[in-house]
Amino acid sequence: MVTAIDLNSDLGESFGAWTMGDDAAILKLVSSANVACGFHAGSPAVLLSTLRSAAQQGVAIGAHVSYPDLVGFGRRNMDVGRDELIADVIYQIGALQGLAKAAGTEVRYVKPHGALYNTIAQDERQALAVIDAILAIDHRLPLVGLAGSRGLDLAQQKGLRTIAEAFADRAYHANGSLVSRLEAGSVLHDAQHIAQRMLQLIIEGGVTSIEGEFTPIKADSICVHGDSPGAIEMARQIRNLLEEKGIAVRAFAAS
Amino acid sequence: MVTAIDLNSDLGESFGAWTMGDDAAILKLVSSANVACGFHAGSPAVLLSTLRSAAQQGVAIGAHVSYPDLVGFGRRNMDVGRDELIADVIYQIGALQGLAKAAGTEVRYVKPHGALYNTIAQDERQALAVIDAILAIDHRLPLVGLAGSRGLDLAQQKGLRTIAEAFADRAYHANGSLVSRLEAGSVLHDAQHIAQRMLQLIIEGGVTSIEGEFTPIKADSICVHGDSPGAIEMARQIRNLLEEKGIAVRAFAAS
Amino acid sequence: MVTAIDLNSDLGESFGAWTMGDDAAILKLVSSANVACGFHAGSPAVLLSTLRSAAQQGVAIGAHVSYPDLVGFGRRNMDVGRDELIADVIYQIGALQGLAKAAGTEVRYVKPHGALYNTIAQDERQALAVIDAILAIDHRLPLVGLAGSRGLDLAQQKGLRTIAEAFADRAYHANGSLVSRLEAGSVLHDAQHIAQRMLQLIIEGGVTSIEGEFTPIKADSICVHGDSPGAIEMARQIRNLLEEKGIAVRAFAAS
Amino acid sequence: MVTAIDLNSDLGESFGAWTMGDDAAILKLVSSANVACGFHAGSPAVLLSTLRSAAQQGVAIGAHVSYPDLVGFGRRNMDVGRDELIADVIYQIGALQGLAKAAGTEVRYVKPHGALYNTIAQDERQALAVIDAILAIDHRLPLVGLAGSRGLDLAQQKGLRTIAEAFADRAYHANGSLVSRLEAGSVLHDAQHIAQRMLQLIIEGGVTSIEGEFTPIKADSICVHGDSPGAIEMARQIRNLLEEKGIAVRAFAAS
Repeated sequence: MVTAIDLNSDLGESFGAWTMGDDAAILKLVSSANVACGFHAGSPAVLLSTLRSAAQQGVAIGAHVSYPDLVGFGRRNMDVGRDELIADVIYQIGALQGLAKAAGTEVRYVKPHGALYNTIAQDERQALAVIDAILAIDHRLPLVGLAGSRGLDLAQQKGLRTIAEAFADRAYHANGSLVSRLEAGSVLHDAQHIAQRMLQLIIEGGVTSIEGEFTPIKADSICVHGDSPGAIEMARQIRNLLEEKGIAVRAFAAS
Repeated sequence: MVTAIDLNSDLGESFGAWTMGDDAAILKLVSSANVACGFHAGSPAVLLSTLRSAAQQGVAIGAHVSYPDLVGFGRRNMDVGRDELIADVIYQIGALQGLAKAAGTEVRYVKPHGALYNTIAQDERQALAVIDAILAIDHRLPLVGLAGSRGLDLAQQKGLRTIAEAFADRAYHANGSLVSRLEAGSVLHDAQHIAQRMLQLIIEGGVTSIEGEFTPIKADSICVHGDSPGAIEMARQIRNLLEEKGIAVRAFAAS
Repeated sequence: MVTAIDLNSDLGESFGAWTMGDDAAILKLVSSANVACGFHAGSPAVLLSTLRSAAQQGVAIGAHVSYPDLVGFGRRNMDVGRDELIADVIYQIGALQGLAKAAGTEVRYVKPHGALYNTIAQDERQALAVIDAILAIDHRLPLVGLAGSRGLDLAQQKGLRTIAEAFADRAYHANGSLVSRLEAGSVLHDAQHIAQRMLQLIIEGGVTSIEGEFTPIKADSICVHGDSPGAIEMARQIRNLLEEKGIAVRAFAAS
Repeated sequence: MVTAIDLNSDLGESFGAWTMGDDAAILKLVSSANVACGFHAGSPAVLLSTLRSAAQQGVAIGAHVSYPDLVGFGRRNMDVGRDELIADVIYQIGALQGLAKAAGTEVRYVKPHGALYNTIAQDERQALAVIDAILAIDHRLPLVGLAGSRGLDLAQQKGLRTIAEAFADRAYHANGSLVSRLEAGSVLHDAQHIAQRMLQLIIEGGVTSIEGEFTPIKADSICVHGDSPGAIEMARQIRNLLEEKGIAVRAFAAS
């Protein structure tokens, strides 16, 4: 019987004079913070401040590594070569490790962001580059990825620990894949319904797919958002319902 | 009696498709490599490759931290605020530490680059920001700076180890300060003369100033360049003469 | 008797996924929009959209040129050399001219942003670089600057038209200079008071200084802000009061 | 009978302190210069200097527009959305137009660089974005692209003039497509052979394909390189042979 689950969210996505997300609010609700590393968001001063807040709240830190694409917020596919991608990922993890140490905390896991996340769910070349980067800098850091994805399989084969992730507000197909954002019904909006759905995920080990059948999803962590008041309310309802049902919200990648 | 001296040079200053310096040649001559950290030069793949070469040659690695100014190569003064500068320096050291670990080596010291180097020789506010950044990420990392500068004094007061540096190809005033590059005779060019001068520096603890008097300079390391065939030849003559005279070239910040 | 005045504000300061300011609201209130050019803010797609909106509202466009400092939002002093600064300014004006043409409008003036604005108010070297840049790309473009500043004097001597600017929410010394933001009382907050003060500026040709005396200020344009609901309300009150008193809000740099 | 041909080459690819290519040498050999616009290379001061040299030599200027990827030198495929790509291309053309005007010359054509060049040879979505960008800023600017490509067909359908380009040092398949760089024999090295081959291209309207058959290629311009002494020698031999045979080297996009 599952008695605890990890809730993760993206943080540190402000940049210089630009603000994004309500990091203070979401830090009270999640157990793990995917902190930007400067390549899609997160100027150093923003990151140091975010890491200090996360450390104060006892939230686990993950390196939210990205393609080097500030203007595209890391959401655009880029055909980065293996050597470049390996070095880019190591550079970002190292930078966040340095800032985390200065903030009295440490990096506990690695989660690729945006287009890189989606790409390594299926592209073996880029997945292996990310995996080899983690192995090169610290083989104990688990990789967060899409539950059931090719990228996580490869990581396990290579000896990395993995954290399989489900998305609170996304619909799933019967085969366990995410419904594309281009299709109707792909994104869920009703906070109460979503909270119940996540309870189902934890207790029953799956959710009802868009085709109507129960779909098994083995998730170690649930991704929630903090970039709008509605998103924060959704995260709050999920956390409240879980705790009400005796399920603790706790970092998977705890020290 | 001095039996060893450190020779340091700037490395990893290529960026993406652009090449700068002959890192392979200079790595055979120096004991310490000031490796760029991405803010004035050094894309991650360039840095990882540079660090691997340095590790193979047994050359000590320093983080060559800079203002964020790629187009200006970190040579332009910037009025960066304390919090930003602290975070920028930590970010860069951390990034290089990550890449160094992946390359099987480690960062042994910190040397500010270009305009930041010159500024913290005298500006207390920025010097303290750099010092506090080093203290926050790893208080054991020594700070390389201009021999006799205010920045090094402050670093020692704050408990940091320091590495005082002399420049092989620069003229000094009688008071121990560098002759400005804007003045005639500020930069020396005769490799043989420079090698003799560095021998004098090590053995007598000073050099002849531009005013003609002997000027004491207490230097733990000598900075040489690798950005032209002439510069490399100069470094070679310095090293050869020192070794001929029984002075070993050895990293000051050795593990 | 003055029957019209220009109101200008900074626009196009979003960047990629990051939003700044309420451009739609402020565009209804001002006659001139200082549009970022990508060096401190304003990714191309943001700028094209901003320029289309400005064109629809009949608002005049100015190129809000900056130091190349995205992470510092162009607010940090930078010691940029003459040739670099000239080319940077031309590049930015040209880029905005291209986007403006595509949006069916055109660039009517140049206003330096942030640290560059403040620097050229007094620094002759950088002021001349900005002036020479404008002369090189289009000598008919007027330069917007601080009323009474050295930069505007130089521009006139060099044959450029100038637009002297006053700040609605800033206190002035008796000698006509701005009270530093570091001093108490430098920034005004009471929208009604500010509106009255701007009416005084237009009708009497000056305002009451922080020392209590009337200070003459010859301003062709008034700078207001749009980066907060309070700022927009302030701009609205200024515009409403001026129009109530028969003073039209009209671009100084009209075609 | 063909009596003239255009030779084009990439210029302005230095960036800040980094140098690339021998612009002075290649400017003496070509009739058209594809000048970088800052997105893959070309800091503003570099570009202004390049444009002045090109103006002095009477070489026609093209805007060498790219994806925003400095560290990847614009060589990596990027999935840029339509609105972003349109604005990126307009921004770059505008910036170069501004600098060209300051240098006493003007932009005469547009040539996409690197990955963008290859992509729009076949990808309709991105090709249309580039075409619409040119139409929006100046519909008289011709588009340079791969001879026989889908991108040029689309451009003509949309009313743009086009300049079909052949590559001096590349092998072609019998169907007129380029042999992939991944295949043996794709890149030619013998300068004399290449010069003869370009003469054949101009006089016979095609070249011998890698399969051994004559392949018709209708080219308005020939692309040569200037990034190595060997490349410059190759360009020289091509030019010398053409002129010897009475074929003038002249910009296609002449004013």
